[in-house]
Amino acid sequence: MTSSNDAHNIGRSTSCNPSNNNHNVDDSRINMDSRQSQVEVHHVRLPPDVSTLQKLKNKLSEIFFPDDPFFRVKNHSFGGKLLFGFQYFIPVLKWLPKYKFKMFRSDLISGITIASLAIPQGISYAKLAGLPPIIGLYSSFVPPLIYAVLGSSRHLGVGPVSIASLVMGTMLSESISPINEQELYLKLAFSATFFAGMLQAALGLFRLGFLIDFLSKPTLVGFMAGAAIIVSMQQLKGLLGIVHFTPKMQVVPVMSSVFGHTKESARRPKLFWISAAAPLTSVIISTTLVYFLKSKMTQVKYIGKLPKGINPSSKNLLIFRGPHLSLAIKTGIITGILSLTEGIAVGRTFASMENYQIDGNKEMLAIGIMNLCGSCASCYVTTGAFSRSALNFVSGAKSAISNVVMAVTVLVTLLFLMPLFYYTPNAILSSIIIVAVISLVDIGAAIHLWKTDKIDFIAFLCAFFGVLFISVPVGLAVSVGVSVLRILLNATRPNTTQLGKLPGTQIYQCFARYEQALRLPSFLIIGIESPIYFTNATYMLERMLRWVREEDERIESLNNPPLRCVILDLSAVTAIDASGIDALCELKRVLDRKSLQLVLVNPPGAVVEKLHKSKTLESFMLSGLYLTVGEAIADISSTWKM
Amino acid sequence: MTSSNDAHNIGRSTSCNPSNNNHNVDDSRINMDSRQSQVEVHHVRLPPDVSTLQKLKNKLSEIFFPDDPFFRVKNHSFGGKLLFGFQYFIPVLKWLPKYKFKMFRSDLISGITIASLAIPQGISYAKLAGLPPIIGLYSSFVPPLIYAVLGSSRHLGVGPVSIASLVMGTMLSESISPINEQELYLKLAFSATFFAGMLQAALGLFRLGFLIDFLSKPTLVGFMAGAAIIVSMQQLKGLLGIVHFTPKMQVVPVMSSVFGHTKESARRPKLFWISAAAPLTSVIISTTLVYFLKSKMTQVKYIGKLPKGINPSSKNLLIFRGPHLSLAIKTGIITGILSLTEGIAVGRTFASMENYQIDGNKEMLAIGIMNLCGSCASCYVTTGAFSRSALNFVSGAKSAISNVVMAVTVLVTLLFLMPLFYYTPNAILSSIIIVAVISLVDIGAAIHLWKTDKIDFIAFLCAFFGVLFISVPVGLAVSVGVSVLRILLNATRPNTTQLGKLPGTQIYQCFARYEQALRLPSFLIIGIESPIYFTNATYMLERMLRWVREEDERIESLNNPPLRCVILDLSAVTAIDASGIDALCELKRVLDRKSLQLVLVNPPGAVVEKLHKSKTLESFMLSGLYLTVGEAIADISSTWKM
Repeated sequence: MTSSNDAHNIGRSTSCNPSNNNHNVDDSRINMDSRQSQVEVHHVRLPPDVSTLQKLKNKLSEIFFPDDPFFRVKNHSFGGKLLFGFQYFIPVLKWLPKYKFKMFRSDLISGITIASLAIPQGISYAKLAGLPPIIGLYSSFVPPLIYAVLGSSRHLGVGPVSIASLVMGTMLSESISPINEQELYLKLAFSATFFAGMLQAALGLFRLGFLIDFLSKPTLVGFMAGAAIIVSMQQLKGLLGIVHFTPKMQVVPVMSSVFGHTKESARRPKLFWISAAAPLTSVIISTTLVYFLKSKMTQVKYIGKLPKGINPSSKNLLIFRGPHLSLAIKTGIITGILSLTEGIAVGRTFASMENYQIDGNKEMLAIGIMNLCGSCASCYVTTGAFSRSALNFVSGAKSAISNVVMAVTVLVTLLFLMPLFYYTPNAILSSIIIVAVISLVDIGAAIHLWKTDKIDFIAFLCAFFGVLFISVPVGLAVSVGVSVLRILLNATRPNTTQLGKLPGTQIYQCFARYEQALRLPSFLIIGIESPIYFTNATYMLERMLRWVREEDERIESLNNPPLRCVILDLSAVTAIDASGIDALCELKRVLDRKSLQLVLVNPPGAVVEKLHKSKTLESFMLSGLYLTVGEAIADISSTWKM
Repeated sequence: MTSSNDAHNIGRSTSCNPSNNNHNVDDSRINMDSRQSQVEVHHVRLPPDVSTLQKLKNKLSEIFFPDDPFFRVKNHSFGGKLLFGFQYFIPVLKWLPKYKFKMFRSDLISGITIASLAIPQGISYAKLAGLPPIIGLYSSFVPPLIYAVLGSSRHLGVGPVSIASLVMGTMLSESISPINEQELYLKLAFSATFFAGMLQAALGLFRLGFLIDFLSKPTLVGFMAGAAIIVSMQQLKGLLGIVHFTPKMQVVPVMSSVFGHTKESARRPKLFWISAAAPLTSVIISTTLVYFLKSKMTQVKYIGKLPKGINPSSKNLLIFRGPHLSLAIKTGIITGILSLTEGIAVGRTFASMENYQIDGNKEMLAIGIMNLCGSCASCYVTTGAFSRSALNFVSGAKSAISNVVMAVTVLVTLLFLMPLFYYTPNAILSSIIIVAVISLVDIGAAIHLWKTDKIDFIAFLCAFFGVLFISVPVGLAVSVGVSVLRILLNATRPNTTQLGKLPGTQIYQCFARYEQALRLPSFLIIGIESPIYFTNATYMLERMLRWVREEDERIESLNNPPLRCVILDLSAVTAIDASGIDALCELKRVLDRKSLQLVLVNPPGAVVEKLHKSKTLESFMLSGLYLTVGEAIADISSTWKM
């Protein structure tokens, strides 16, 4: 990085043409201009000359390759690069050759462990999505195998997740009845999964992963809480109905309260065992109970016969035309984005715990291909699930082999154990669902948002009430809108502060925070805390004039020496556009008419460059541009004394 | 402003609870903690405790009253405040009592002068809007009188303008034919004017004037150029048609080329006389020519009979229901916003030339009421017109009385001179229109945008081609979208730079611009040039880790001492949200695992506050928070030496 580039010099003592390549290496030289001041002044410099094309390239590479995924191949031969390319897109090629039998023991244990969670969860979540229970098991078989080949996370446990399941269930059942039009519903679910996969793979392939960052934390917290409440209400209705018929089933609320602890333990991975074992245990206990008491409990609804055998092909069920296509696409987009958000976040969390990095965009590609394949093999939307991944992590998984073990366990279940689920009561599935979704209501996070940031809290409320009372897409859109508006608002009415000098230092800080800061007679020092864009250029101009007016009034009331110089500290003005430049020029004109000097201090590179290109810089060249507030004041004061 | 507020102290040597009100006035005290370092360290302080309500009040007052319009009444009695209130909303009460006869002479001259421009312009612009010519004269009579009472600009010349006229013409004639459905067209034009006035008055009343700032300069330049080309094509077709029939009319292109100079002289107000006299002169010459040669020029179309008399009421023509209501509202909104933008910009320009300030929001209210009244008196959309205002200014207008004089002159014309326009050829009106709109094509501004800012240039292109090939609303919307996206993009991939120390100073600047900057062994100093929001939090985290990785590689290749401390200069991080805080915490965790120290330097008040409220600050309290990079390095190095 030791740059020998052609950074330009701009300063009082250099020629009027700032684009000369006159390097000024002895930065500490004394200002030698006609005023003969003895103040040490450092020159503000232009950033190095970079062509527009190069700039575009840099900008694009920051947008699409912020994590510099190919940094490892920089100094490799072509063969090395090719090998790296293969390994990059198919990570199994990289880690499988180094795989050791010792690791397999850990993976075997954790694979069987997550399967014990995955089987009851799969059945329940499929029900949540309005699908036959068997689809949940299918979705825990094929996708984990594909992820094991393409995924780069060692701990991600793949399968259906509650959020995507409930969104799919909510969105599809608004138009189609999952009971009366079961076949169409199934077709739409697979088609939505296909489009979700398409979207995910496209985002990953074109490295547009940053778009999912637009779902901010408040939006997600609000959305999940709202969605969880909707689902709980639905499921609770079912539960209460059963309770009404058979008072003996009071066991369900009790078990439900047992599950209530899941939420807390999910935050403490060490205790995750208990909560993770709960679904399977309760399924086993309740199924056994129903089996033995079935003559007495005639009102209890249970799953009934499930088909044996592995995933049938669903390729012919995909819909690419007709009146329901738009519903499938819409559902696919929203479930795709939400499941992607969860998968990437979970992957990043566990990668950061074990101190390795995963490439978000590549993960998206892996998840997308997984869903594309899944949609052709009777699976609905799957992703990296938080609960399974946490379980995978605490049970000691070493690689994606644990996903393979889980898939094989599910395969065995599909082939031989399906009859065992015949008597599993629907109520127990409802309670598994309620427990899963209730843990999505994160009241602590909501309180935290309220305390730290009111606008974040509003975005949270929009997502929460929007999803609860209007619809999933509207709630999400309004909440994202609020978050974006906040950025714009910050760029519309930025903060400006008056700075003073901390005694005995060269530090200039705002009066509001540092009451010991000193005013300098005849100087008004203003810090602008935002880029100057068209949205705030007029405001900035008016606000600066108001600062000047207020300072004039203060000076008048105190009989202080009159104002002579206005210093703008531009350190935080990280960008400027055409309107901003116009506003600065207008400010200079107005202050000129009032015989006030306008000085710019420490403009960042991008701003100096714009000022230079628009020929505005020239008007500031003669003692109107300094690197620090201290140097500006010293230099300008020295000229006044003469 | 000498604050005696309770700014809090946060620092290494203070207690762990940063919300104690322990003032620390002797800022230059030596750091006395266990490390016994002799480095002078200043404490980062929290901003003063302000309640959420007060903060909201401050924020809202900056949004709605950025220019502090009531600053003059601050120390007045209730009666004084009441009087000021009246004078504020009805400025004529303020300036009329002080009006002197000497000023009337100037106003009389300039009033008659702008009337000589207003009459031919009014007729032409009405034609441009697809309206009968007489509407243009009506619109130059009632609105100036209303503006004289309510307006606060001394130089604004009020009347129809080309932009609003052509947008109204384009938008209405897409659905309604101005020739075959003349009455409906007229109704829609008045209704659109009514809605434009409503919108303008509402924006002013609720002080939402900042919304027009969202029409950035590139958008306006592109829009005007595109619209001008559309209109010229339309009018040229008419002109060429005439040329085809009567080759003798070659005079028209010649005159048109004479007018071509208008554009340049419009920029030099002193020469404005020439261009301003051109329309009336050409109308007089061409009318006289047609009158005397009418037997030979049978193919020439001329205006024909115009009704005598003042504005009839159009109250009953307003449409508030029916199938065309939405078109009227849409047209009203767009013409209202565009005419407002021109009126406010023109008012500000001339106010700034004469060194007085106008209150944008109050002007909007005045323009809005003017259009509301106008829509009931057979006027279409009017605003402060650039050409008239410039003429008004150079001919020496002293007050809004010149608008009254203009209105009276137009009144005399309406009552007695209408027969004179009988033989005015339509072609001359077309050429007046073409001249007016061609001057809106500002190629210089477009080149300037290309040179200074590529994204501004793209916004310009979007507006230009959008308006030209799709429609006015789409063109404007896309262009505003691009401008807004640029703000978001800047908040999505902000610039980060590595800083070094300028030799012999305490100034830290980026290496790319200051190649003499020195690296400090074991330190990595990064400047972040943007707020940290949900849109860039993940990027920031990844980018910081990449900086660390790159620095590690560099150190390794040079066998330098290993990295021990990462310093983030937050001077330009003017805001942070919940996701940003999470990213900072995550960065600290990752660096902790790598045994690297993370230090924050100079976070602005809003950021310190958020960090404090989210309890994040505490983890940085012990030697993780400094006021300047220099102090951080000195203090941390001193602990390493022991």
